[in-house]
Amino acid sequence: MFVGAQVSLYPMTDGFVDVILSSLSALDPWRDRLRIETDDMSTLMVGPPEVLLPALRDLYVAAAAKRHHCVLRVTLSRGCPGEPDDPICQTDALAQNTTPLETRQSEALAAVQGTDATGEIARAQFSLYVMGSGDHMAEIMGCIGFLKESGTFDRSKNFCTRLIGDAGPVFATLQEAFCRFGPPNGHVTMDLTVSANSPSTH
Amino acid sequence: MFVGAQVSLYPMTDGFVDVILSSLSALDPWRDRLRIETDDMSTLMVGPPEVLLPALRDLYVAAAAKRHHCVLRVTLSRGCPGEPDDPICQTDALAQNTTPLETRQSEALAAVQGTDATGEIARAQFSLYVMGSGDHMAEIMGCIGFLKESGTFDRSKNFCTRLIGDAGPVFATLQEAFCRFGPPNGHVTMDLTVSANSPSTH
Repeated sequence: MFVGAQVSLYPMTDGFVDVILSSLSALDPWRDRLRIETDDMSTLMVGPPEVLLPALRDLYVAAAAKRHHCVLRVTLSRGCPGEPDDPICQTDALAQNTTPLETRQSEALAAVQGTDATGEIARAQFSLYVMGSGDHMAEIMGCIGFLKESGTFDRSKNFCTRLIGDAGPVFATLQEAFCRFGPPNGHVTMDLTVSANSPSTH
Repeated sequence: MFVGAQVSLYPMTDGFVDVILSSLSALDPWRDRLRIETDDMSTLMVGPPEVLLPALRDLYVAAAAKRHHCVLRVTLSRGCPGEPDDPICQTDALAQNTTPLETRQSEALAAVQGTDATGEIARAQFSLYVMGSGDHMAEIMGCIGFLKESGTFDRSKNFCTRLIGDAGPVFATLQEAFCRFGPPNGHVTMDLTVSANSPSTH
């Protein structure tokens, strides 16, 4: 199993370098469970989803707290057939797709409802892709059913779904969507954008 | 057929609103062939790929020319089974997958080589997803074969491919990758980031 993300932070301010560098310490509690590599376009974070999503949440909250308009952009992937297994990705967080969709939806809702608030609002927009054979649209529709009950659902748009709420339950919703739908050893990806402090929302 | 993109521009400057608004006129020559809707997180652009990709290129070039670090973020989709047919998306640009991969690769290379330069450098990073049944990895590998010969190939990264070059051939490469691989009526998506004027590349 190989699980990871390409991650970028876009602070809409002249001081964007400072916002990025001063937010990175939010990753410190997670670093021993992630492999992290940075280039000029994105940062690769490799590790299990139950570490990856909370680490992304903490990075987002730290950047949002600088009060600039700031966007976190993430390409998440698990089970890509082109990637080698990596022991750091060992996880029990992926649901078995032999478990009925209804059961997985209930477990996902319980996980979101048990999540603490962070004090920062997150507006998220994402697409979940389930690759390969099998009924990928049934898994997507099952995930959308969960999202609509999650308490963080905002609305469907073309090609993606919007969430809004405190960053705690929003990132928990994203984690559940990524882990409980699509086969556990299949190739599943997520194209994710999370926006803070946009002037367009006032 | 339904083809479109969710598009966002992230200028890393206090004057981000001005950069965005003053770049939008680059879309004017394309507006009669696109349907465009904006909210606080992204702009939906619906239309055929041979209009969509050049329009995105022109938007990128206009924003890059302001000389701030600026990122164009795009979620491209064609053939999503959840979207209705739309006459504005009528296109002959999608290759038949009965055409051998080698032929499609040659046609794609010819198209990129025939593209004019814009004068702006583009560093792009993208993932191409081919959904549904069938041998999606064969199509992806065929596309990667084309990319490596395209003249814009930079390198493979985990989960994505990097391109670098003038924005003309770079966006042409992206258009060919999106149109010539995966079945013409299948569900194909692209998660795309294009970066201008990053201080990290100096």
